[in-house]
Amino acid sequence: MTTHDTRVSVLGLGEMGRALPAALVKGGYVTTVWNRSPGKADDLVAQGAVAAGSAREAVGTSPLVIVCLFDHASVHEVLDPLAEDLAGRTLVNLTTTSPDQSREIAAWAAAAGIAYLDGGIMAVPQMIGQAGSSILYSGSTAVFEQYRPLLDLWGESAYFGDDAGMASLYDLALLAGMYVMFAGFMHGAAMVGAAGVSAGEFAKRAAPWLSAMTFALEGFAEVIDGGDYGVAGQQSLEFSDLGDMVAASAAQGISTEVVDMVQTLIRRQIDAGHGTDGFARIFESIKHPA
Amino acid sequence: MTTHDTRVSVLGLGEMGRALPAALVKGGYVTTVWNRSPGKADDLVAQGAVAAGSAREAVGTSPLVIVCLFDHASVHEVLDPLAEDLAGRTLVNLTTTSPDQSREIAAWAAAAGIAYLDGGIMAVPQMIGQAGSSILYSGSTAVFEQYRPLLDLWGESAYFGDDAGMASLYDLALLAGMYVMFAGFMHGAAMVGAAGVSAGEFAKRAAPWLSAMTFALEGFAEVIDGGDYGVAGQQSLEFSDLGDMVAASAAQGISTEVVDMVQTLIRRQIDAGHGTDGFARIFESIKHPA
Repeated sequence: MTTHDTRVSVLGLGEMGRALPAALVKGGYVTTVWNRSPGKADDLVAQGAVAAGSAREAVGTSPLVIVCLFDHASVHEVLDPLAEDLAGRTLVNLTTTSPDQSREIAAWAAAAGIAYLDGGIMAVPQMIGQAGSSILYSGSTAVFEQYRPLLDLWGESAYFGDDAGMASLYDLALLAGMYVMFAGFMHGAAMVGAAGVSAGEFAKRAAPWLSAMTFALEGFAEVIDGGDYGVAGQQSLEFSDLGDMVAASAAQGISTEVVDMVQTLIRRQIDAGHGTDGFARIFESIKHPA
Repeated sequence: MTTHDTRVSVLGLGEMGRALPAALVKGGYVTTVWNRSPGKADDLVAQGAVAAGSAREAVGTSPLVIVCLFDHASVHEVLDPLAEDLAGRTLVNLTTTSPDQSREIAAWAAAAGIAYLDGGIMAVPQMIGQAGSSILYSGSTAVFEQYRPLLDLWGESAYFGDDAGMASLYDLALLAGMYVMFAGFMHGAAMVGAAGVSAGEFAKRAAPWLSAMTFALEGFAEVIDGGDYGVAGQQSLEFSDLGDMVAASAAQGISTEVVDMVQTLIRRQIDAGHGTDGFARIFESIKHPA
């Protein structure tokens, strides 16, 4: 039988958990949905999804089960009682978890005879199925390849090998960059905010500025991978000293914690005698904890 | 006499200090250049600039004097002996200084009868005169308006009023965002680096990701300016808790300082009872030092 099986169940209908099945319904899949607290499925049902009365019913309906729950503990709470129901089926876990938690669930799935793929979503719910959305996967290659057309409905699908923890690690690394960037923006907004500039006015300039400055990341990466932080054409650590920035922040009466963090990474390298090396050397301050 | 005076002198020929007169020469200005240590003017002279034998000679040659020196102290070292020569002329200071330092130089200039405009360059030298380059100015409105055609040769010119310190403050605020974003990238690179991923491979994904995520800044700004951190449609602080990210970083054997910084800002608001408010509330952690 070559009929393409289009049955899929989605457990967990938070904001992201609702965006995922919405894209599947739109893509022609027979989509069953379930959420612990009621009412979350209504809009999806109006779009064509089927609401299951229990997690067991949802799991029993489809060969492919997707979970997008609150955290690692919720995944076990919901799925542990259903291990036998899941045996022989495929589980794609898009819950945000740590690499070790992903590996732990992968081992649990393997022991229960469940094919497992772990995913990390690099998008906000509104971006699912739109340009700019990408989802990182690791775990079963077979699952990734079999379900690629379905996965691609959500955005770009990237596969990082059979270590189930790798997608989570990559996900967390990219999210780390994002949260830290957000904090940097907030710090800048607080600096000019103390002089009466609105955050909105600052954002209009900061968003395109930060976006443009991402061009520098590839250059830093080249230096890091090249292993010679003294290579020509870089801004030196000494020149990058943020003393003026820290002082100006303090003069505005705001916390200096955000910029202190970068200054600490810079100073550690300067104090170790590397002041003429390039800024990329702060990577070493992170790689080797003080 | 309506003849347009095209004479301009540039003092300080570091990497940025060479990019500035290069654009002026190209734009048809009669450009005199000077640097404390010799040899820096050679390329510019080949392009059509005139090298002055001393800072005094450079100042005496043009009605408009632009300085781009190492720091605030260098500006005084070079210009203090030339106050009388500068009297009646216009000084545009593009040296990176703190807001208070800019105000101090503005007061010095005012006392010496020198028209003064302060500027902060939001570009790397290669970007001068190219798309994406912008320079922030504050100080004399008359100087900004008179020399606007010249200033526009370097990039977009933005004026922030007659407080000479405002351009520096804005400059530092945007640079703060940039350096913090760079540190966030380095942290992510270190996380996946510990699992064997090259920084270059990570940068290929991180640069477009961070660039795309700048879309969120305007939303944060709206919440901050609106004054209600509980407004609907936001990711809550509780959901933003970075405990997993910090633990995963530690598990990779790298420093957690970078993400600890953001987690500290988040936890301070959660601990104060605001966990259901949106992530934008970390602004308050910065605005009001602990």
